[in-house]
This record gives sequence, C-alpha cells and structure tokens, in this order.
Amino acid sequence: MPPPEVLLLGPGPSPTSVLVRAAQAWPLLGHLDAAFLPILERVQQRLRDLLGTTNAFTLPLAGTGTSGMEAVVGNLVEAGDRVVVGVHGVFGQRFAEAARRRGGDVIEVLTEFGAVPDPAAIVQAVAAGPTRLCCVVHAETSTGVLLDLEPVAAGARAAGALFAVDAVTSLGGLPWHADALGVDAVFSGTQKCLSAPPGLSPLTLSPAALRRVAERRTLPPFAVDASLLTGYFGADRAYHHTAPVSLIYALSAALDEVFAEGMLAREQRHRAVAASLRRGLDVLGLMPLVAVADATPMLTSVCYPEGIEDRAFRAHLRKVHAVEIGGGLGSLAGRVFRLGLMGHGARPENVLRALAAIGDALSAQGRTADIGGALAAAREG
Amino acid sequence: MPPPEVLLLGPGPSPTSVLVRAAQAWPLLGHLDAAFLPILERVQQRLRDLLGTTNAFTLPLAGTGTSGMEAVVGNLVEAGDRVVVGVHGVFGQRFAEAARRRGGDVIEVLTEFGAVPDPAAIVQAVAAGPTRLCCVVHAETSTGVLLDLEPVAAGARAAGALFAVDAVTSLGGLPWHADALGVDAVFSGTQKCLSAPPGLSPLTLSPAALRRVAERRTLPPFAVDASLLTGYFGADRAYHHTAPVSLIYALSAALDEVFAEGMLAREQRHRAVAASLRRGLDVLGLMPLVAVADATPMLTSVCYPEGIEDRAFRAHLRKVHAVEIGGGLGSLAGRVFRLGLMGHGARPENVLRALAAIGDALSAQGRTADIGGALAAAREG
Repeated sequence: MPPPEVLLLGPGPSPTSVLVRAAQAWPLLGHLDAAFLPILERVQQRLRDLLGTTNAFTLPLAGTGTSGMEAVVGNLVEAGDRVVVGVHGVFGQRFAEAARRRGGDVIEVLTEFGAVPDPAAIVQAVAAGPTRLCCVVHAETSTGVLLDLEPVAAGARAAGALFAVDAVTSLGGLPWHADALGVDAVFSGTQKCLSAPPGLSPLTLSPAALRRVAERRTLPPFAVDASLLTGYFGADRAYHHTAPVSLIYALSAALDEVFAEGMLAREQRHRAVAASLRRGLDVLGLMPLVAVADATPMLTSVCYPEGIEDRAFRAHLRKVHAVEIGGGLGSLAGRVFRLGLMGHGARPENVLRALAAIGDALSAQGRTADIGGALAAAREG
Repeated sequence: MPPPEVLLLGPGPSPTSVLVRAAQAWPLLGHLDAAFLPILERVQQRLRDLLGTTNAFTLPLAGTGTSGMEAVVGNLVEAGDRVVVGVHGVFGQRFAEAARRRGGDVIEVLTEFGAVPDPAAIVQAVAAGPTRLCCVVHAETSTGVLLDLEPVAAGARAAGALFAVDAVTSLGGLPWHADALGVDAVFSGTQKCLSAPPGLSPLTLSPAALRRVAERRTLPPFAVDASLLTGYFGADRAYHHTAPVSLIYALSAALDEVFAEGMLAREQRHRAVAASLRRGLDVLGLMPLVAVADATPMLTSVCYPEGIEDRAFRAHLRKVHAVEIGGGLGSLAGRVFRLGLMGHGARPENVLRALAAIGDALSAQGRTADIGGALAAAREG
C-alpha cells in the first residue's frame, strides 16, 4: 500500500512536484549510456550555474549531504592540518567531527545555538595559525540562523586557507555565488530547497581545492576521492561507481523547475512565505528563535510557549493534520519546533495550512489560539 | 523528454519492474515519519532474511556498493591491521585499495582475471599472520567468476579473523546464508539481482564485527560509522542522516518481488537463463571466459573471436538493438564483453533478444552467424 500523503514542512525532505517524483520512474539507463551522459552533463552544468561557479569539478555525489561533507574533509584535510570550524548548530558540530575523524587539528569557534555567529571571531581563529581549511554552515538547519559568508570568505582568503561551506539547506532557496565569494568547496543536499528526493549531494571544488588534492600525501576513502570521481564526472566518463541514475533523473527535473522559475523569483518566494509565516505566528503568540534579519527564510525555528509539550504538539500536526514539522536538535530539543518552507513547499497555501494546524495543536493543549486572525495576518502581507 | 527504453543486459544497473520504478513516485515521507519507519523496518527484516542472518545491524546504506565497501573497511580496519584480500578481478582490487586507504597492512592473494581463485591460498595467507580481516568478492562482476565462500569462511574463522564478503552481484540471484557460513560483514548493491535502482548498499555486520567496532581506537568517517548508523537503523530511530526515502520505497517493492517469487525459484531462473545463453553462444561460435561450474549465473563474460572490435560490437547492440551490454574491465578490456541476466532481466525472451543482437553484431563485422540456430538452441534446453 502506498504511503500516506503528508505535507512535508519539517527540515527536509521537502515536498517534491509530481514531475520530479515521476521522473524517477523514467526508463532506467546505464550510468555510462550515451543517452544518460547528456542528462548528467546538463545536471552538472545547471549545478554550476546555480552555485555560481565555473568549477569543472561540480557533480551530484551519490549519498546524502553527510557524504558531501565527508568528501570535502576527505579530500582537503590530512592528519595534523589546522582546520577552523564555525559551529553554531548541529551541522557545524558534525563538520568539526568529520574533520577530526580525518585527523585534522580542529579549532571550533562556538556560538550558542540560535545566536548569530560573529564572522570576525571565525576570521580571527583562521588568522591565529597556519590554517589549511575554514569550514562554516551557511543555513544552519538545526537553528534557522543564516551566516554572512562574505567576511569569512575574505578572511579565509587573506589567511591563505581554503574555505568550505555547507549549503545543504540554502542551495535552491537563496542565490549562490561561489566564485565571486571565493569559496573553494561547497556541498549541498537535494532534499531541501531543490525539492528533489534525498540521496544525492551536489558538490563543487575550486581549482585551488583541486591543487590541494594533487599535493596531498594521504588518500581519502575510495568513494569520495576527487581524483577518482573526476574520471566519471569529467571528460573521460570512465567507470568509478554505478551512479544513482533514477535520482539524477529526479534532480534533473527539479533543476528544470528551479531554472524555469528563476533564482531571483525563487528567493523572493521563500522570503515572502517566511514573512507570511512570521505574521501568523505573531498572532498566535509564538516567537521565532531568530530575528528576521539573521534567519534563514527556508527554515524557521519557533520557541514553544510555557506549558506546550513538544512531542504531543508535533504528533497532533502529523496525526490530525497530516503535516510534518521538525523538533529541536541538540540543546534546542524540546524548546523549539522547526518549520521548513522549502522549494516546492514554499507556498502561501502551505503557510495557511501550517498556521491552522499549529493553532489547533495549541488549542489541543489548552491554549487559546486566534486561528482566524493568524490566517488573515498571514495572507494580508 | 524521457530517456529511451534500453534493455539493460550489462553488469548493472539491471532492468527494474514497472512497480519498482513507480514506487519511487510514491508520496515522499520524512525519514523519521511514523508511516515510513514500518516500511524501513520491513526492508531491514527482508534483507536479513535474504542474507540468511539474524544480525540486528542489517540496513540499506545510502550510497552505491562502493559505499558499502567503505563502511566495511571503515568500521573493521584500523591502521596497521593485517588484512588479507582475495583478488580475482577489479572489485577485489578495489577492496584491497579501500583497506589500504584505511591504513591496513594489506596482503593481496592474486588470481589471474578470469581464473578461479584457490580458496586454500586465501586461507593460507590468513593463517600466515595475525589477521584482522579477510575480504573476498563472491561474484566478481568484472570477470563472472563465482568464489566458493565456505572454505574461506572456515579458514578465516579458524584463524580468528573477521570475514567480509562483497555480495554486490550475488545477492538476490543466489541464496545467501551469512550466519550459517560465518560471515561477519556483507555488503551488496540494489542495482544487480535485486533489480532496484542504484543508490543503496544493503549491509550487515555480525555481533563479532560489532564487538570489533566497540573496541576500536580510531573512528571511521561519520557517514559510515556503525555505532552512529545504529542510532537510526536500530530501535531508537534517531536522526543520523536523511535516508533516501524514495530509493527505499523502490527497494521495498523490489524485495516484495523477490519474496513473492522465492529465492529457490529465483536462483533456478538465473541458472536456467545462463544455461540457455551458453547454448546459444555455442552455436554462434562464442566462448564464455569462465567454465560453467565456476561461473556466476547472473553475469557471463564472453571472449571476442579474433577480429571482432569491442567498441563497434557493443555500439551495434546499443544503437541498433537498444540492448546494453558491458565491456571488459582491467586486463580484460577489449578481450571480452559482459552480459548480465540479473533479477528482473533474467528472462528467456531477453536471452533470445540478446542472442539475435549479438549474432547481428557479428554479421556487421563480417562474421557468419547462425542466428536461427542459436535461438533454437537457446530455447530448446
């Protein structure tokens, strides 16, 4: 029996369009087939365009966003390398952990979860020693805080460090300019603002990053080795692994939708629905964790009022309204819920459905909720 | 425009049924959703049944078969560990390389590509020193040689080594009895005899393997760490990564088909079509690389006769007949073609279509081919 239809407004996976889902059912081709390679090449070029880069090494890596992170640290970190990681949520912690497991000498620049990191503090840490790599998370999915990349990129460049960014949640929701910023490594996921199914990690490495790859003394795991991946994703199209063909079909269809809409309109849509959500939450007496100026438009963390129990609240949305939202992670567990309006899911009608469900879940826990007022505020922007 | 329909008779991906392809278009659920977790649990239990194991740690890992290999060496090999690898093809070479990259002291027991490894030689190498792990490839996709696992398993056990098997091409085509054999780690792929799309690697680790995981001094990459994967794939169902939900739907549908048919019938079907293919090839004057007693039924390497050019031959099949077959890998490149009759693709009508196309490709290069005789021989088994 097919699974139920649930509106996915959590931290991902996000809703996918009918065309994107159906693309997975296209006739399967071999990963080296002459009819498949142009599809792959087009996906790679569109990822370049979306990331704002001319990097030849730009590809959809098999695996989840975490695999993309492993590819970045696997290729760019060797034992003893000084690595500075800006940590302002669970995914920054993970970036630091991945670099440590690779043998890096990791310096974490910590910011309280939900607070906004000071780019100057990260830059200072980078400049304090001979740093191989500086890692940050653009849109921290665990908190909803957006980091200003520009000063960090400039500081890393000035210090001669490579600069790597986790763009899992931002790519496809906010414009990206990797080359203009001077980012050497970006990885993302397909299941957030690109609104494709999970299982691929868009990944790009700059020429400077590839020079580092050429100079390294120790080899990364086979599956993420940039020099081997180039064999398949470069001009040779030589066998390295069996690419997830059906997921690449879906990503291709999803990128078609991104480019048909245009990235500026898409950013505008994400910002508009986030603002609409905030107006409605305000009427319901709910406070976002992060001020709008520092928040990711695609993911909003919302503080629970006194007396509202997280699990029962989310279960009410899921069971009664068929709406998925996310709980808090790490130090925010039980204190916030996370509402994603990502990609195909970032639509005004989804904001209204979410607000009605949230108001109803508050009522179910004995709290008065002006649902009508919230809906009116949300739609009258 | 959707891709063309090509009959996939290469080394994988294999043909998928309409239901398996369509399952990917099911409504996407969150990877932690209460309606998704029973689907995942059922997939895990069916993988246990198919592998012949009660290992709690049995799961569909995100990524390709190579990721499963990385998970095995990542979790079970530490720097300096003695690792014996039976190498009789490209995937044995890869297993050895993956273990070396993990810092293992790797001893390769080499067999010429296409020849049959002597299990005693592998066992002898294992017994020659304190060996942490013994690795072999069950069905070598690069040659079509099947390894007898039992004597190697017994020898590894006697020597106190963990025993790991690459079952990428065999799982779903031949019965598996991991516990009865005493195998500590098995990884596979979904795109061969399971006839699901590529992008997942079924993986199981025995209690002995997990004891090794608990005792290790250095940590593997985050994405493949068994102790972290257990958090999501075990009773807690805690977040570790965003599982590729749509691929798990497809695997679930593919496993339904495997269990509806039954593994004995499925093995019989693979053996019957392989025998049928060999009868037809014989009439066409084509010699399989491997004698039937040592060959994988799901993949047959076939030697080119003098004067037949590999690329033109395969291009003829693909362009004129819409049939994909594989070329040779490594030392067999240009010398053989590889024909897979795997899972959903292992059907008598596909044998006939392949033989007709092969005969026609021989004719196109000026060689006489008795196509009618080959078809008659194939169908009159």
